[in-house]
Amino acid sequence: MPTNSLLSHEDTTIGAYILIRLAQLGIKQVHGVPGDFNLRFLDLIEDHPDLDWVGCCNELNASYAADGYARVSKAGIGCLVTTYGVGELSALNGVAGAYAEQVPILHIAGIPSSKMQENKAIVHHSLGDSNFDTYAKISDFVTCASSALKTPKDAPDEIDRLLKAALTECRPVYLSLPPNLVDAKIPASNLKIDLRQKVHEELQLQINPKLVPEVLAQISELYLKAKKPMILLDRGCDAFKVSTEVIKLAESIQIPVYTTLMAKTAIGVHHPLFGGLYKGGSSDIHIKEYVESSDMVIWIGTVASDRNTSSVSFNFKASEKIELHASHTVVRAKEYPSIGFRTLLPLLTQRLSSLPHKQKRQIRDSNPPAKIAKQVSMNEMITQAEFWPLWAENFFEPNDIVIGESGTASFALQDVDFPDGAQLVCQMLWASIGWSTGACLGMAQAAQEQGKRTILFIGDGSLQVSVQEISTMIRAGVKPIIVVINNDGYVIERFIHGMERKYNDIQPWKWTGILDLFDPENTTPKANYTAETRKEFMDLFKNPEFRKADRIQLVEAKLGREDAPDGLIQCIKALREKWE
Amino acid sequence: MPTNSLLSHEDTTIGAYILIRLAQLGIKQVHGVPGDFNLRFLDLIEDHPDLDWVGCCNELNASYAADGYARVSKAGIGCLVTTYGVGELSALNGVAGAYAEQVPILHIAGIPSSKMQENKAIVHHSLGDSNFDTYAKISDFVTCASSALKTPKDAPDEIDRLLKAALTECRPVYLSLPPNLVDAKIPASNLKIDLRQKVHEELQLQINPKLVPEVLAQISELYLKAKKPMILLDRGCDAFKVSTEVIKLAESIQIPVYTTLMAKTAIGVHHPLFGGLYKGGSSDIHIKEYVESSDMVIWIGTVASDRNTSSVSFNFKASEKIELHASHTVVRAKEYPSIGFRTLLPLLTQRLSSLPHKQKRQIRDSNPPAKIAKQVSMNEMITQAEFWPLWAENFFEPNDIVIGESGTASFALQDVDFPDGAQLVCQMLWASIGWSTGACLGMAQAAQEQGKRTILFIGDGSLQVSVQEISTMIRAGVKPIIVVINNDGYVIERFIHGMERKYNDIQPWKWTGILDLFDPENTTPKANYTAETRKEFMDLFKNPEFRKADRIQLVEAKLGREDAPDGLIQCIKALREKWE
Repeated sequence: MPTNSLLSHEDTTIGAYILIRLAQLGIKQVHGVPGDFNLRFLDLIEDHPDLDWVGCCNELNASYAADGYARVSKAGIGCLVTTYGVGELSALNGVAGAYAEQVPILHIAGIPSSKMQENKAIVHHSLGDSNFDTYAKISDFVTCASSALKTPKDAPDEIDRLLKAALTECRPVYLSLPPNLVDAKIPASNLKIDLRQKVHEELQLQINPKLVPEVLAQISELYLKAKKPMILLDRGCDAFKVSTEVIKLAESIQIPVYTTLMAKTAIGVHHPLFGGLYKGGSSDIHIKEYVESSDMVIWIGTVASDRNTSSVSFNFKASEKIELHASHTVVRAKEYPSIGFRTLLPLLTQRLSSLPHKQKRQIRDSNPPAKIAKQVSMNEMITQAEFWPLWAENFFEPNDIVIGESGTASFALQDVDFPDGAQLVCQMLWASIGWSTGACLGMAQAAQEQGKRTILFIGDGSLQVSVQEISTMIRAGVKPIIVVINNDGYVIERFIHGMERKYNDIQPWKWTGILDLFDPENTTPKANYTAETRKEFMDLFKNPEFRKADRIQLVEAKLGREDAPDGLIQCIKALREKWE
Repeated sequence: MPTNSLLSHEDTTIGAYILIRLAQLGIKQVHGVPGDFNLRFLDLIEDHPDLDWVGCCNELNASYAADGYARVSKAGIGCLVTTYGVGELSALNGVAGAYAEQVPILHIAGIPSSKMQENKAIVHHSLGDSNFDTYAKISDFVTCASSALKTPKDAPDEIDRLLKAALTECRPVYLSLPPNLVDAKIPASNLKIDLRQKVHEELQLQINPKLVPEVLAQISELYLKAKKPMILLDRGCDAFKVSTEVIKLAESIQIPVYTTLMAKTAIGVHHPLFGGLYKGGSSDIHIKEYVESSDMVIWIGTVASDRNTSSVSFNFKASEKIELHASHTVVRAKEYPSIGFRTLLPLLTQRLSSLPHKQKRQIRDSNPPAKIAKQVSMNEMITQAEFWPLWAENFFEPNDIVIGESGTASFALQDVDFPDGAQLVCQMLWASIGWSTGACLGMAQAAQEQGKRTILFIGDGSLQVSVQEISTMIRAGVKPIIVVINNDGYVIERFIHGMERKYNDIQPWKWTGILDLFDPENTTPKANYTAETRKEFMDLFKNPEFRKADRIQLVEAKLGREDAPDGLIQCIKALREKWE
């Protein structure tokens, strides 16, 4: 689907080729920080009609922004541009997080010119040696494919190889690009190939056709025997956007669907087959009982990490467990390589729904009763137990993008109900504090285009990590609601260790001064609020200006220093019991 | 030199052992960010009578702070504590910078417990696998030694090995420490060994005694023939603190001493043997002529990087060049391993000064004439050409620590004279923008203890990278003067490429609002200033409150958007001529 006029020419350049590919994939915003080795490439981005350059305050935040953008945008992939050494290493934590959490990003690092490399120059941003591949080697640990472009010759195939890998594996890929190659001529012919279609075809080709019948037969056999089959949605469902296909499967055979923390909003709570949130040892007791007595669990996009599963339980019998991954399938502990859920799910739905109907299977009658938070006076400081349901019940709307920073927010938001179509985004596995500020920038850009609100919940300690990206939000004209949980330090850590310790304290800031600091010329409408009682929050929710979210808004929410949501406390308890 | 009461016991613990070693080395501040895998270790730091825990806003800034601390403190080494994955990777750019620039740091990463590792748990902050050595492998690229403590048995030797490596090579080292080992009992006996003394002894032992006479003879031969011998000080002089020894050598044989950018203040400008600043192709013409016609250059602690040398010249004839490194010596292109300058310098001074005096050698008569900046009206916006000499002539004092952020500051400050004893600290090779804010925290802590002022010059774009560490400065009670060059974007980049490009613009901030934002409770005295004309700066310099620097102060210095110091312009020109 060529979208750029350059395609009318026979040739293009490496820089233009990359940008055409990005635009074809639907990317609209490219995040990064300028540096002398990427400036020539930035010229092209700045001049491109369909791409915005989003210059971030630092590279870590830029990598978070690209991550957030990939999670929420229709494109489903982000692009990050950094400079050699200093830039790319600063971004490494963010890229690693995208790797862990299965978020595709094309990371382009501008590197020294081919001439400098050939002459073994000792350049700035190097370790003082003439090794030009050190950072690429580092990057290899946290990307699924990489390429160091050396000559124009292989560029089209190399760039396509990277993008296909990112789309296939939902992981970051790394391209190093010296400035002298940006304008190097290359053929444009590859651009006629639709990369998503190509990925689809290649996935099909990889499959050993002899194994598919075996997989289907194995699953069918388990299914026919099962009295309590169920589906468990995990991170891979969101990452590879297969929830719709999975729900279709569930509906066709009428079995309940549970989610893990990492796929919390992959199915709406009002769906008749929705079972609940299963989080291992710290699950609601009714959910735990149902799930752990199931005799057939189809676990989709499995991430068996400590916090996702509270480390305990999730010990489904291997003989009754089916894991559907993007790259392979596991049935009764036997692994079938290359058979991924993108290919398998339609076949499985077809097969299972064609099987003879058995007795009506046991499905939980209703969702577990909502937890009623102990209600304190309207005028006392709100508790964590009250705070989150209050937002959920009175403020969240369908299609909202709600971001929960690692800490109290990510755990608490798991335990409230979201309106249908609203999406909760957390970084549950990687859990890098500060991620959500940068990610909020990218998500808000993607959400704004879709006419959605973006609401960020972030702790004070986490916001201190990456606060400057609020400046970029203002510059980029996005209008998220930023809720700062001002509870005087690293509360998640207080509950893990050191409740009274000074190292869990932070410097208090004037939170409601941030927006003005970053926009002294008042170029964009903005509003600040402070609230700490139920009444103040209820008043806020009733404020139509606030609800409309058509200006950037910051809410300082004051909460207790030694107060944490039950979900967090239970998870810490479960982990402690397991590991101490 | 045991300094801790724990030493009276036969045993200690791993955590205590590390802290005793840090205290023995003279470290007073430990920088980092808490995370669940390091909290138990932080307990010990918080409780230690001679160490302060300095919790930074993020890990990159913490690594910069440890770097700054190592550069300026009497200890000459810093300590950085981060958590697993997210923390250590965020710090990687800063640790890499310390590696490149030869700054010793002990980086301790708290990692998952031995039990989690043995059980191959999939923990948060992991890539979703059970590989616990991934980050250690990454760290190996930017450290000179590393150790993953697995059992208490080898801990004392391993910890000592790392610290000795850091002291020997002036580079970072990496230790991963699971929480369960923090309290593990180990023998304290090693602690009687003085590590610095041990390093000295080991350096002596490594030397092949047969080669030393050859090195001395080779240098003597060159020296006796030379008509214009000279010494060139480079980064290694500062890193290994051998300037005094080198100047002693110069004095004993009366030859001139030049410096590179990276050793700018390693010799005072009033020293009778001071020749000037040599920066390759962009040097002052008189200096360039002298240096490049020298027939014997003793280059000490060589860093032949592009910006340090403007990539050109520095092409001393190999037959006339002597490089003294910390780890080896090169004479007439022949390398002598293990003979480092710490051992060689005293011997060389003894030898050369014992040689028969020859005719008086040609020494430059005087320093090059100071450049007189074109003086504009007192009431117009100041230019870069005027700005820096104005500070140097009217404000800098002996013993000041002056920090030049990469960009206009690091280049401009090279071309002004500093009072004797004042120290200019830049990151000329690694050149990571934002470094200086974090580094300023660590330097100001070290400087304050020595009764010195700390003055940071940082561009607006760079400050946006790492601004939050000013909050930690306030919290730590240090009182630097922070001069923000408000010139509307990345000016160094404008001069490299894209003068008019939007990607070189930044969001304008209310710079004089930063201190208040970070200290709403006004716990510490502070002051803000804005100046843009010569008159306003002169008034500021005359302000005794400002000069005293006994409160944290921020100066917003407004400079032109398309104005850069000549040193930067010349360097860019030289690099362009070489590489384009």
